[in-house]
Amino acid sequence: MDRPANQIREVSIERHYLKSSPGSVLYRCGETVVLCTASVSTSLPKWREGSGKGWVTAEYNMLPHSTSSRKQRDRGGKVDGRTTEIQRLIGRSLRAVVDLEALGELAVNIDCDVLQADGGTRTASITGGFIALVDAVESALPGSQIGDGPIRDYVAAISSGVIDNTVYLDLDYRLDSAADVDMNIVMTGAGRFVELQGTGEEATFDNDQLTQLLASGKQGIDQLVSLQKQALQK
Amino acid sequence: MDRPANQIREVSIERHYLKSSPGSVLYRCGETVVLCTASVSTSLPKWREGSGKGWVTAEYNMLPHSTSSRKQRDRGGKVDGRTTEIQRLIGRSLRAVVDLEALGELAVNIDCDVLQADGGTRTASITGGFIALVDAVESALPGSQIGDGPIRDYVAAISSGVIDNTVYLDLDYRLDSAADVDMNIVMTGAGRFVELQGTGEEATFDNDQLTQLLASGKQGIDQLVSLQKQALQK
Amino acid sequence: MDRPANQIREVSIERHYLKSSPGSVLYRCGETVVLCTASVSTSLPKWREGSGKGWVTAEYNMLPHSTSSRKQRDRGGKVDGRTTEIQRLIGRSLRAVVDLEALGELAVNIDCDVLQADGGTRTASITGGFIALVDAVESALPGSQIGDGPIRDYVAAISSGVIDNTVYLDLDYRLDSAADVDMNIVMTGAGRFVELQGTGEEATFDNDQLTQLLASGKQGIDQLVSLQKQALQK
Amino acid sequence: MDRPANQIREVSIERHYLKSSPGSVLYRCGETVVLCTASVSTSLPKWREGSGKGWVTAEYNMLPHSTSSRKQRDRGGKVDGRTTEIQRLIGRSLRAVVDLEALGELAVNIDCDVLQADGGTRTASITGGFIALVDAVESALPGSQIGDGPIRDYVAAISSGVIDNTVYLDLDYRLDSAADVDMNIVMTGAGRFVELQGTGEEATFDNDQLTQLLASGKQGIDQLVSLQKQALQK
Amino acid sequence: MDRPANQIREVSIERHYLKSSPGSVLYRCGETVVLCTASVSTSLPKWREGSGKGWVTAEYNMLPHSTSSRKQRDRGGKVDGRTTEIQRLIGRSLRAVVDLEALGELAVNIDCDVLQADGGTRTASITGGFIALVDAVESALPGSQIGDGPIRDYVAAISSGVIDNTVYLDLDYRLDSAADVDMNIVMTGAGRFVELQGTGEEATFDNDQLTQLLASGKQGIDQLVSLQKQALQK
Amino acid sequence: MDRPANQIREVSIERHYLKSSPGSVLYRCGETVVLCTASVSTSLPKWREGSGKGWVTAEYNMLPHSTSSRKQRDRGGKVDGRTTEIQRLIGRSLRAVVDLEALGELAVNIDCDVLQADGGTRTASITGGFIALVDAVESALPGSQIGDGPIRDYVAAISSGVIDNTVYLDLDYRLDSAADVDMNIVMTGAGRFVELQGTGEEATFDNDQLTQLLASGKQGIDQLVSLQKQALQK
Repeated sequence: MDRPANQIREVSIERHYLKSSPGSVLYRCGETVVLCTASVSTSLPKWREGSGKGWVTAEYNMLPHSTSSRKQRDRGGKVDGRTTEIQRLIGRSLRAVVDLEALGELAVNIDCDVLQADGGTRTASITGGFIALVDAVESALPGSQIGDGPIRDYVAAISSGVIDNTVYLDLDYRLDSAADVDMNIVMTGAGRFVELQGTGEEATFDNDQLTQLLASGKQGIDQLVSLQKQALQK
Repeated sequence: MDRPANQIREVSIERHYLKSSPGSVLYRCGETVVLCTASVSTSLPKWREGSGKGWVTAEYNMLPHSTSSRKQRDRGGKVDGRTTEIQRLIGRSLRAVVDLEALGELAVNIDCDVLQADGGTRTASITGGFIALVDAVESALPGSQIGDGPIRDYVAAISSGVIDNTVYLDLDYRLDSAADVDMNIVMTGAGRFVELQGTGEEATFDNDQLTQLLASGKQGIDQLVSLQKQALQK
Repeated sequence: MDRPANQIREVSIERHYLKSSPGSVLYRCGETVVLCTASVSTSLPKWREGSGKGWVTAEYNMLPHSTSSRKQRDRGGKVDGRTTEIQRLIGRSLRAVVDLEALGELAVNIDCDVLQADGGTRTASITGGFIALVDAVESALPGSQIGDGPIRDYVAAISSGVIDNTVYLDLDYRLDSAADVDMNIVMTGAGRFVELQGTGEEATFDNDQLTQLLASGKQGIDQLVSLQKQALQK
Repeated sequence: MDRPANQIREVSIERHYLKSSPGSVLYRCGETVVLCTASVSTSLPKWREGSGKGWVTAEYNMLPHSTSSRKQRDRGGKVDGRTTEIQRLIGRSLRAVVDLEALGELAVNIDCDVLQADGGTRTASITGGFIALVDAVESALPGSQIGDGPIRDYVAAISSGVIDNTVYLDLDYRLDSAADVDMNIVMTGAGRFVELQGTGEEATFDNDQLTQLLASGKQGIDQLVSLQKQALQK
Repeated sequence: MDRPANQIREVSIERHYLKSSPGSVLYRCGETVVLCTASVSTSLPKWREGSGKGWVTAEYNMLPHSTSSRKQRDRGGKVDGRTTEIQRLIGRSLRAVVDLEALGELAVNIDCDVLQADGGTRTASITGGFIALVDAVESALPGSQIGDGPIRDYVAAISSGVIDNTVYLDLDYRLDSAADVDMNIVMTGAGRFVELQGTGEEATFDNDQLTQLLASGKQGIDQLVSLQKQALQK
Repeated sequence: MDRPANQIREVSIERHYLKSSPGSVLYRCGETVVLCTASVSTSLPKWREGSGKGWVTAEYNMLPHSTSSRKQRDRGGKVDGRTTEIQRLIGRSLRAVVDLEALGELAVNIDCDVLQADGGTRTASITGGFIALVDAVESALPGSQIGDGPIRDYVAAISSGVIDNTVYLDLDYRLDSAADVDMNIVMTGAGRFVELQGTGEEATFDNDQLTQLLASGKQGIDQLVSLQKQALQK
């Protein structure tokens, strides 16, 4: 509650959380907990077969009890729109730092299962999913380094938002509910944009606010990439 | 083909295209043709009932023959992810300029059926859907004016993108396929951002490119809002 | 309203309405508007492969705002029974005038999307769909003429009905709602029956009424076939 | 095989076949066997509630082993088009002889489960379903007689068809497969048409053939109604 | 009602009930009536292809009017949990007495359609389904005998239960509703267990009760196997 | 690997694993890891409303990466048969020790999400789910003790099986794959059976083996109940 507006939440990255998949990360960011697991297979989507290139795809899911009022499982044959949007975003974001040609004809699947949700689950999925991706690729193609093998750069994501004309970084559920404008920024280790999504739900924002939201986000990304580097050195 | 990089496609807005719905617009933008129809009802979503406020929602659909290779209908019980994303975007964008309290407990439904697709169908749906929205609200609450009644401002949308380091405005299918970065901008008549979505599929972009993409988009929006004003004066 | 009981509604047939499909007809019949588009592909149904013969199939769909009270889209995985019946009828009717052997191993798909519904959408879909079929076949097998190539004859459809013991031709929505008995007739240019469906919903009819319904329908078909011939000569 | 072209198959009607429903008929017509069961409840469709009138509806289903090559159950959430058409036809046909006002606010549900299929399952379902309907109505509203209570008349159905220019009555599977034109006739005990469906699949028929098909059908219906009367007198 | 606690209900086994499938048994056990049909095909599940071994699978279904309050068909795309459990149980039970290697690469499908349900439909499906299985295998691989060909032994099933501390055999609906504990026993002709399912719904049972339930069941199975032998000798 | 045949795997029970639900247990049993979360609400199933009694229900789910070859999510609208069986078993087992009248009109929902699967996930879900149930009931109805409030007794579950005529306790994946017979036992703290499921897939078992399987299971249950008691005392 007392966290300053421009400070990110405490992050912990626990690699090799499960034995059943080569990349398996328990990612905590404040009270948000996401289990990111990754595996590599040769079953590419049909349109990709024989192209010499790989593919990276993601699934996102909230466990029923991840929120305080139980959320029903997506078992009715209809994945809700929000879920679909988020898993497409995670996939695109991770692909942006993968050299799919260098990956070869391999498919990497990242599952992001939210165990506990307190805002920022999509950005946590990207930041934590990246570590699972690196570990899974390392298990399939040992010896490659970031920037040198199929993984060209780091990638991390964070949210920022406007509440009563103040810009806040890394919105938890309480802040997110209060925000007029909500921005998600996905950026590489080199500081290049991968994805930028700014949304005013029943509100709008001007150019000055955009500039502040981007600056705040950039600073958060830099910290997350540092934490990713530390985690991968262990 | 010879259209300059910073020029929008030719737009035509045909109001009252059908008699069966109060707001009904055939929106053409180059070879892209979208039928936007709007109706007003009192059947609000459950969570909205008794709130004293209305709601605006949208559905987006491509007719099977809107593209040269026939696209299957969404009849299998699964609306594809892209469709879901687009219809959520249209709904949010239109709600941003509606005073839902002034609307009262009414639900406005905007259907955007793409008859022919040549790129930019989501932005055309927003720009054309706005006109259908205005006509439908006028039929339910006669006499109100934009800025004065439930509709607080104009809203329009356009895409811009980067191709070989050049910024292009209003991407048709050919340009969209070639673009490394793709930006969709939704903006009000007053020049405030409603939504900003910049995506690099297997590519990234830097701050300079972002600035150019936004400037180009701003200029396109200004022209579209002028065309909306003309159409509504007829 | 003042249309005589034995007179068909005004018909307009606009060919090449869209560029995205080879056969594309905007068919208007009074206030009923159907967009019929047709395309040709080589993807036959499995049971048809290697038979040396082609296939013609149709899909029928009402846009949500085609009726004054918005109709929900068929997205729940269940196409309603009426839709299924109608698209099977359109397919059978068109196949009756196609020499599937002369067509060769090609699949023609006719999409009939009802933009505005004022009764008679199934018969409009057949009469208009025939023109789209001819244009699509012509684009795939240029140079053939009706009666000479895969298309053996014209085909058109019309409804007739009994209201208070009077026989009416070409029922619009108002007449259809009032009818005790409803007959749909599909007939070739040569005056042979393709399909005959007479239904009394909570009512019955006798042999004399049947004779009158058929005579009235025959006269309507003759006029529609003349209009088809004119449209195809343009 | 030796059955004359104008003779119906042998029919047996076994009433009260099961104890679990008030109307329960095992209807055999040659090798075609249909179990028709009917029950009465007060759960009317929503649009019918409070109207003072009842409703009659039917479901049709083929058991997997009713045909020699096993047919998959309709469990995928999609009832196939043919099934939908048939059950709508059965419902309409039975409603035509029911005075829904005299029935009062009751719903009658007729289930037609085909145990063995050798052609003519839809007409058998109507003819046998009528007996189940009568028994179920009798159990709910004891003492009424046909023509006097909610059931106004008998109703039966039969097929006829054209094979090599000869008209055949009551097509079994072998005849049905060979027929160019296929006619289903539903008629009341008084000889009035309820429904008439003539279809030429890749074929057409002329007025003379229509006259013969109707005459042949009329004769078959008269025999079926006699058999219904006998069965109900037991 | 007066049936002693340790006596099974009257059983009738009618073989070759339908002509459309090689194994077709109408199995009656008191008021419970199940139609068991079996067919043999070469379409094995994918994971079984090329293994040299066959497979036996079952489907279970209750007709809507098998119970006195009509049960809706499983057409919504979701087979209910109870149905799934039962058909898996039937399949496992029958496979336990089939030498799948001796069967060769054949798939046997057993359909168990409950025409009337008065308790014990799953055990009736197993006991009756076994006869249909034998007849279907005999039609595909003539001349084999039980114990000698692919069918290694008889298999039958029965329920027992505890009501007010008394053990009852072969529970009909009335007994089943009153039972605190419900046991289903599937056993071979040689008296070996295939499956044992004891369930206390909101109740529990001790070791003594278990012993009695098993003894009672064993005795019932012995009688059923005798009846199966008689039926197969006809 | 070296674990003796009659010894259970190492168990760890971590209560209050997540803050978002009142009962939240990370249950580990060897390499099997299940997250059991429980919540209490007032939304009872319809048939239970107004009965004065509560209800306990469970959902079971394997995360995609819980097994070494990734398992697809149940998103297609069809929950597979095995999942359905297991979640029904968990629900019944837990209800057996709950006094639903003492619970009052409350619904307890137990979610069992398998993070890592190495055999015995259904029994782990019951044993761990019981702890989550106790914590959730305690949060809703503080102060009650086991045996004294709505929870009448402990309940735990374990598997045993026959491999090459030896009885093994607590089968992990490797043992389970090798087992001819597989028994799941659910038992209360007082040693009474709740559920007994013995299955021979393509195999059978005799009375002696049954006796040994039960004895082995009883011993395992006793140890698990001790561990539950320890965990609840913390």
